Amino acid sequence: MRTQVVIIGGGPSGLLLGQLLHTIGVDAVVIERKTRDYVLSRIRAGVLERGTVDLLRQAGVDGRLHTEGLIHEGTMISLDDEMFRLNFTKTTGHPVIVYGQTEVTRDLFDARAACGAKTVFEAEEVVIGNVEGSAPTVSYTHEGRRHTITCDIVAGCDGFHGVSRQTIPQDKRREFEKVYPFGWLGVLSETPPVHHDLIYANSARGFALCSMRNANLSRYYIQCSMGDNAEDWSDEAFWEELKHRLPPEIAATLVTGPTIEKSIAPLRSFVCEPMRFGQLFLCGDAAHIVPPTGAKGLNTAASDVHYLFQGLKAFYGSNDSSGLEQYSAKALARVWKAERFSWWFTSLMHRFPEQTEFELKMQRAELEFLRTSQSAQAAMAENYVGLPY
Amino acid sequence: MRTQVVIIGGGPSGLLLGQLLHTIGVDAVVIERKTRDYVLSRIRAGVLERGTVDLLRQAGVDGRLHTEGLIHEGTMISLDDEMFRLNFTKTTGHPVIVYGQTEVTRDLFDARAACGAKTVFEAEEVVIGNVEGSAPTVSYTHEGRRHTITCDIVAGCDGFHGVSRQTIPQDKRREFEKVYPFGWLGVLSETPPVHHDLIYANSARGFALCSMRNANLSRYYIQCSMGDNAEDWSDEAFWEELKHRLPPEIAATLVTGPTIEKSIAPLRSFVCEPMRFGQLFLCGDAAHIVPPTGAKGLNTAASDVHYLFQGLKAFYGSNDSSGLEQYSAKALARVWKAERFSWWFTSLMHRFPEQTEFELKMQRAELEFLRTSQSAQAAMAENYVGLPY
Repeated sequence: MRTQVVIIGGGPSGLLLGQLLHTIGVDAVVIERKTRDYVLSRIRAGVLERGTVDLLRQAGVDGRLHTEGLIHEGTMISLDDEMFRLNFTKTTGHPVIVYGQTEVTRDLFDARAACGAKTVFEAEEVVIGNVEGSAPTVSYTHEGRRHTITCDIVAGCDGFHGVSRQTIPQDKRREFEKVYPFGWLGVLSETPPVHHDLIYANSARGFALCSMRNANLSRYYIQCSMGDNAEDWSDEAFWEELKHRLPPEIAATLVTGPTIEKSIAPLRSFVCEPMRFGQLFLCGDAAHIVPPTGAKGLNTAASDVHYLFQGLKAFYGSNDSSGLEQYSAKALARVWKAERFSWWFTSLMHRFPEQTEFELKMQRAELEFLRTSQSAQAAMAENYVGLPY
Repeated sequence: MRTQVVIIGGGPSGLLLGQLLHTIGVDAVVIERKTRDYVLSRIRAGVLERGTVDLLRQAGVDGRLHTEGLIHEGTMISLDDEMFRLNFTKTTGHPVIVYGQTEVTRDLFDARAACGAKTVFEAEEVVIGNVEGSAPTVSYTHEGRRHTITCDIVAGCDGFHGVSRQTIPQDKRREFEKVYPFGWLGVLSETPPVHHDLIYANSARGFALCSMRNANLSRYYIQCSMGDNAEDWSDEAFWEELKHRLPPEIAATLVTGPTIEKSIAPLRSFVCEPMRFGQLFLCGDAAHIVPPTGAKGLNTAASDVHYLFQGLKAFYGSNDSSGLEQYSAKALARVWKAERFSWWFTSLMHRFPEQTEFELKMQRAELEFLRTSQSAQAAMAENYVGLPY
């Protein structure tokens, strides 16, 4: 079998690339290790930058997003019992849209099905071959049979644990990593969100985040030890701890209820350089991971997709490969800025086990500067709503 | 002997407070441990914030500063071989003035002599007594004889190693500290400055700073190990190392020559809370130290003097002690912001012995964000020209 582009990974970045390629008539096959339902069961952040929204519009999958997504023009930031609002629209002219990553993925699956593009689910033992030649191959096992697709380009959108990055020989890539000494215990609950805006809270007991999916589905997180087990946290204990970390007037209005999901996620910063090896192009988590503070994961994957799509458009449209040549450098320039923002915002909002009194004072002074300086708020908001591509 | 205010320490903050008090007819005696010449031989940074300049104007000692000071509307920042200019005036409406701290001190000494105010030099074994009562005392030995002054207020302007902070019982103060794992090797040389602006350089070999006192007096610094000895650094070795840390086009125009001063200074962040104990009020280095990156030492001392002067003016003018009551909280709020800025700018520009590859990438991404974001430049410039009092 032959196609133009093989996209490894049927998560949002792979599917988004597939839809964009469809709009310009480039054939792409998506190879996914899991089932559609499994992919849709993965719960991830849901704050979309304007650039991500724009790409979804280009891909023709922004219909439901605009009717169901929540426009957020700012965010609340609290330190102990005090809270202030940071206004994105006032400082940057742009809001963000809160719309679950699961919903983005669902919309993309629906669009892909509607246009009849090929997706292989439950593809096992994926092997990428001949990426240094002009006709790379992707082999996989499906329903017990081995298949091979020959193509021009392989897009590695298969996440941190996928085969794409591993296909780049170790001596041809450099990896940068920081593992944070805590995790996020997150719950989903069918309760009304405690606040219209997201609340990022720095408290003496650790970080907390109040987020939401819609008017009756709340998403809350608290910083926890990586030694904790989600099942050891009763709903009651979770709500109690969350309340302790919020300003009293917020805690007083928190509506609690049974949680429908509870899990602990580690926090990691990770970047692989370069993001291209021969005809293999890495996108999203396959090349980089951010800690979730500030919701840059999906958005940074989308910016990779943007650069790769621009490169492929020029390549297939006018046989111009300069965009593909520049892909890694262009994508990485923006990736590092998103990494910096996520690292900075994580460092600013969490309590660290080894943190000195002086470092705590620096956090406090930085939050105080952010509270009082228009420029600092603008610099933060610029990153939050998404740096330009 | 009786006076209204005893100022311990004849450095710039003590002398500035003395001159400000003179303008409102409040008597102050300055007690200095060293000689006038010794005080004037201390070489310190020379970048004055607008607030500092304004205080010097209020004190009537801004004449020479305005004729000899250099107006700097921006600064250069380099990373390896690339350099960009950060424009203060464009982003904040304010420049800074480069005018050596030694010159500020000289002007203040001259003004103090001209108005006939009392300064005791070479005062030894200074003891501050009864600060919790309403009539504190300051005793000292001068030319072999013991003296005691009774006063209303003691201003502790005697620096990090002075007696003032030590007078506050240990259980009544908290100290916050960070010691950086490197020092600054600084030289003074009678050569024209390499650039009109200051150049802050982050290079693979460490930090460098190109500064100046006037058109024929340059001040250069390089980050060095605290294990180094200044005398082991030949002039030749210093210039060679400095050139390696600057962009090639700057290194090529550097005029070198014999150095007339060469010394190594440690870098430290330090804050003592509170800044008041009874009738004793700490100002400047007696209460806090910043690393020199960004030149906040003298300027933060000046902001303390501003708050203390406002408090004393209300106290002596209308028997209103609220300003004195609020002194510590008001001064500290601004001190912590200056500490944060100095810590941030130091962290951004230096190489740290234990720095990971990821952390180096964060430095690079932050400098890249600073280079490209107007908001980030404005937030930096706001701090550099001085946050409002």
